[in-house]
Formats: sequence, C-alpha cells, structure tokens
Amino acid sequence: MEIRSTVPVRDAADLALAYTPGVAKVCTAIAEEPGLVNDYTWVSNVVAVVSDGTAVLGLGDIGPAAAMPVMEGKALLFKQFGGVDAVPICLDCTGVEEIVETVVRLAPSFGGVNLEDISAPRCFEVEDRLRELLDIPVFHDDQHGTAIVALAALKNAARVTGRSLGDLRAVVAGAGASGVAVSRILLNAGVGDIAVSDSKGLIHQGRDGLNSIKEALARDTNRAGLRGSTEEALAGADVFIGLSGSTVAEDAIASMASDAIVFALSNPTPEVHPEVARKHARVVATGRSDFPNQINNVLAFPGVFRGALDVRASAITENMKVAAAEALAGVVGDDELSADYVIPSPFDERVAPAVIAAVSTQARADGVARM
Amino acid sequence: MEIRSTVPVRDAADLALAYTPGVAKVCTAIAEEPGLVNDYTWVSNVVAVVSDGTAVLGLGDIGPAAAMPVMEGKALLFKQFGGVDAVPICLDCTGVEEIVETVVRLAPSFGGVNLEDISAPRCFEVEDRLRELLDIPVFHDDQHGTAIVALAALKNAARVTGRSLGDLRAVVAGAGASGVAVSRILLNAGVGDIAVSDSKGLIHQGRDGLNSIKEALARDTNRAGLRGSTEEALAGADVFIGLSGSTVAEDAIASMASDAIVFALSNPTPEVHPEVARKHARVVATGRSDFPNQINNVLAFPGVFRGALDVRASAITENMKVAAAEALAGVVGDDELSADYVIPSPFDERVAPAVIAAVSTQARADGVARM
Repeated sequence: MEIRSTVPVRDAADLALAYTPGVAKVCTAIAEEPGLVNDYTWVSNVVAVVSDGTAVLGLGDIGPAAAMPVMEGKALLFKQFGGVDAVPICLDCTGVEEIVETVVRLAPSFGGVNLEDISAPRCFEVEDRLRELLDIPVFHDDQHGTAIVALAALKNAARVTGRSLGDLRAVVAGAGASGVAVSRILLNAGVGDIAVSDSKGLIHQGRDGLNSIKEALARDTNRAGLRGSTEEALAGADVFIGLSGSTVAEDAIASMASDAIVFALSNPTPEVHPEVARKHARVVATGRSDFPNQINNVLAFPGVFRGALDVRASAITENMKVAAAEALAGVVGDDELSADYVIPSPFDERVAPAVIAAVSTQARADGVARM
Repeated sequence: MEIRSTVPVRDAADLALAYTPGVAKVCTAIAEEPGLVNDYTWVSNVVAVVSDGTAVLGLGDIGPAAAMPVMEGKALLFKQFGGVDAVPICLDCTGVEEIVETVVRLAPSFGGVNLEDISAPRCFEVEDRLRELLDIPVFHDDQHGTAIVALAALKNAARVTGRSLGDLRAVVAGAGASGVAVSRILLNAGVGDIAVSDSKGLIHQGRDGLNSIKEALARDTNRAGLRGSTEEALAGADVFIGLSGSTVAEDAIASMASDAIVFALSNPTPEVHPEVARKHARVVATGRSDFPNQINNVLAFPGVFRGALDVRASAITENMKVAAAEALAGVVGDDELSADYVIPSPFDERVAPAVIAAVSTQARADGVARM
C-alpha cells in the first residue's frame, strides 16, 4: 500500500500552494470554520482501521505488529471496494481506557473509525464509549460487518425456503464480538427466536456468572428458556449460525427442522464441514471462498463507510446496518437466487452501490446525515 | 492525497491472499519473528506526521483540525521528495504526557515519527521523551529540518566569503523550536561563537527566569557575555539568523562585520527585507521562494527520513543531521556557488540522493542502522 498525491507538485509555484505559504490560507479558513476541514483536506475520506491485536482472525492475541497485515489488507479492501482511504493503526495498548482515549485524541485526523480484532468483551465497551464520545462513525467490523452480511444471507435463505424471518428459530453458537452482534441484528430484524450459546452452553436467564453483555442477551433471547448444549438446542431449529470456533456433530445438524439453514462461519475450519451440512440442510454458508455462499465482511464495510462518509454521518445507526443488509440481500435477483447463491460475490459490481445508497438514505432518515 | 494498493485485487484468489485466509500466514510469521513486520507490511516505509496544532506556521495555536492542511501538505512532500508514505495525525490533546503516550501507543504502526508545529518549550520535552521511549526515528522538523538547511546554507555562505565556520560570530534571534535547534547545530558544527536572543533580549548566564532549555543555551553560547538587544549584539557580528517573527532595523544590519551573512527566516515577513539586507550584507537568505537562497525544510526532511528508513535506523543522531547539512551544502558545486546561490532548489534532483546517502552512511557509522 502507498500514499500518493492526487495533485502534482512540479515547480516552486505548486510547492508554494501545497505547502507554505499557500497552506496558511487554508489553515486560517478552517480555524474560522472548522467544518471546512472536510472540504479542504483528505480527512472526510479517511477511516482509521484500529486494532490492539488481541483477537486477530483465528489467531487470537498476537499483538499489534503481527496484526498489521490484517489491518493493511483491510485498508486495501476499503479502497478497492469503497473508494475509502483507510489507515491501519495497530495500538500498543490493550486497556479499554487507553484505547478509548487514544482514538479520541486521533479523531480530528479521521472521518470514521473502523475497530478491528479487539477481543470481547472489551470490544463492546470500547465501541460504546467511542460512539458516545465521537461525532464520526465508529463501527466494529467483527461485530457489525459480520452481522450485516449474515442477516443479508439469512434473508435470502428464508426467501429460498419460502419463509419469513419471523418464522425462524435460530441457534447462534458463540457469544464473542460477532456472535453477540449477529444475535442483536437478527433480533432487530425480527427473527422469531434465538438461542445463543457460549463455551459453557446455552445462555439463559438465571445462569451464573454472566457478564453484562450476556446478561442482556439472556433477557432478550431464548424465550423457550433452553438449557444445555448448542447441539441439544439444534433439535427442530430452523437456523444454525456458528461463530464459535468449535465443532457441531453431524447428528445435531440432522436433528434440525426441514429446510434447515446452516451458516458455519468459523474460519478456517467451519463448525461443520459444508458438504456434511448440505446432506441435511437446504442452505449452507461458510466464511470460506472455496464453498458456495461465502459470508464475507468485505460485502459490507466498504459500502457502509462510503455511504456514511458521503453524507458525513455522525454515526452508524442500527437502522443503517439493517438497511445495508437489506440492500445486500436485494442484490441477488429472483432469477439468480438459489440455495447455493444467497449472497453475492464481493466482485459483484452491484454490491457497493446498493449498500452505499441504502446507508446514505437511512442516515438521512435517521437524522445523522450532515450533508 | 489518497491511499492506494500497490498490488491488484482482481478476483477471489487475490482477495484470499490480500485478506483472509492468506493474511493469517503473514500474521503468524510476524508473531514468531517481529522484525518481519518491516518486510511484510508497509510499516517500515510509513512516517506519522504528528502535530497538536499549537504552533502552526506563523499562525500559532489554531488547533488540530486547522493544522491538518499543513500535515497533509507535508505528507505530500514526504512522498514526492523522499518516496516516504506519511500519514498526517493531528492530535486532540496538548499535554506533554498525553502526546507522548499517544505516540508511543501508535508507534507499532509506523517506521518513524515526524513531529510538527508543536509549540516550545513542550516540543523539546515531547521529542526528548519519545526519542528515549521509541526505537524508531523521531524528528521534530521545525527544529532539525530548519537547522539542517540553515547550517548547509551557512557553510556555503562561509565558502562564498572565504571563511571557515570557526571564524564566525553569529547572532540568532529567537529561542523557540527552530532558534534553539539552529543554535545547537551551529555549535555542533563548530561555529566560533553564537549569541541567542528571545523576546527579552540576549540570553546570558545569570539572566533571571530562564527555563531549562535557555539555561543550557546560556551555558553553551554567548561566550562574550553580551547583554541587551539583538540589534546591539549585531555590531561587528558576521552572521545574523532570524527565527523570531520580530524585525531588525537596517542600521543594525549595517553595523555588522564586512561580508556579513543575513538569514532572515521568519515567514511570511522576514526580520529585515532581503533587498534592504543586501545593501549591507554579502549573503542574504530568507524562508521565501520569491527571493534567492530559500531556506526550505523540504530540502532536508524527505531525504533524512528516507535515509534513516533505508537502513532501518533506530534514531536520527546529531551526526546524521550534520551529515545531511554537509551533503546538502555539497550539492552546490564550486562553479555554481555564489552569494545568491548558497542553497539548492527543492527541485534540484541531486538533493535527495545526496542527503539520503549521507544520512544512511552516518547511521551506520553511529551504530544506529539495523540493516
């Protein structure tokens, strides 16, 4: 990756414009009217991709230096798919307080903040606090990027099987960043019921030792009050979404309702092999590019930020995320839709424009657009 | 300015390499051998251009947003003249402690730190502490960039007038970031004697209310123990260097020694108009591009960082700064040298290679090179 000038500096006159003394006029104008920083600098098109390296892909806590290739790769995709200039920032600190104060101090230099690969439950608090403190979009992609794409795929899977979201009973394995966010967006989108499990089994009200995030999940999910294992909960369930890094036995998949939907999203090893799942389920998706229906965040984050930046949104609302998911689902036409094609390819050129338009429009509707 | 990919992402295979799952291998390799971050990411070519917006050009404390055009302009010059990718970072904090801890937390993402437009005396402490805490180059350009170019010009001015640096008695007006740094590099380079003044007049031992920086200057300069005003000190002096934003009367310039050298570097209004100074002085330089002999930092910082990054230097030593100045002075050949041409143009293509080579070589000699 590189930074380059979009204007030439060929001679002393160009130099005097790009730097001193010409730049002083621009500085003075911004000092008088701060909003002009968005017109006169690159800030309004730049997103900080911020990580502390504690929850990198399937690799875990590998630290800031080793996390850099992911952030740089992400920045590259931001540009390619959203025209967003993104700067990878790997932080040498892991405390919530430190991360929050550092990002707040950096904020004047950026039009948005994409949080990445910060481990749960700290990631929830970091995002909540930054959303409160900053007036630019803050988006933890591991949570919301995954949630948007999973919801889009689920909407289309429901279309394939002739059901509405309200008809579906889902089991989500994993209560980390993505598990929580997927559960939340499914609730927002009206999925009938959801049971969420963590390494200790299903989360239900009254379970000992729940942190505040899981406590809230216990309140809002699992209306049937199921206890026990993920696999037990799958009996008769319509949807399985795996975001856990664990495995699920073929028997459990076989015990699901007819026309079952299985999203085995752990990477690189899905909770159940997609070919095994396909024997029992109607729609199967994974996080991998070598099987059909890849749930890939790159379908969401470039367009979400592009749409938010285009209207200078002060935040990315829950409605904007759901709108992004609907737009993404809508890209797959009735004539294209099939069990093996519930989500478009990242290289489908209709994706970004659809997501951008939906996000910008929803930002205006939600009153967070500033232009 | 924009960020762009230096590799194409055309299809799913490219995507799998640039991002998940391919990127995991790169992360794992860096986790095992941290130095590989320099080979496998853009970090080793990226410099953070960090400001708090408290001392911007001649504009003063205009805050981080209004400072952004300067940092972005600087980043553009870093790329154009040094091939260095530079990220403008304007911080929403001004305390020494806050700036230092923020930059330390950001450091894993960068190969070097260029401090910019941070007001004195905080800038000295910020730089000193960061140099101590980080093992990458930290360089406050307002200090050292100016100092390097001024020293180069002074060396050539001495060449024009047939003197050595040791022959010269200099008066430096201004004890802010650049005044202190210019004084220090002149001392290191062997200038005969220097008297430095601030808004209260000449700095001398025993003067009341000196801060620790000026206390040290009082010890190391003004061997004659001059007191009073800048203008009084100019009587018989060989060199005047203005970095003060104040003015100096024509009479005072006229009172200087024969073959006087006048660098009136305040921008946009030099301490004395160059045409007035030229009536009495042999060599006159300013910070402006519309008069001969422009002392422009862009002659130094891109090559200094390029040279340091090329050998993965852990610091920029005093020797490296002097070497950069010597290389810069050496670009002007004997056949080109004249009173109106003591410093090359920023567009002289010999400048960067000369500075880069000198800085890299000196880094090796000083034992701070890591490759």
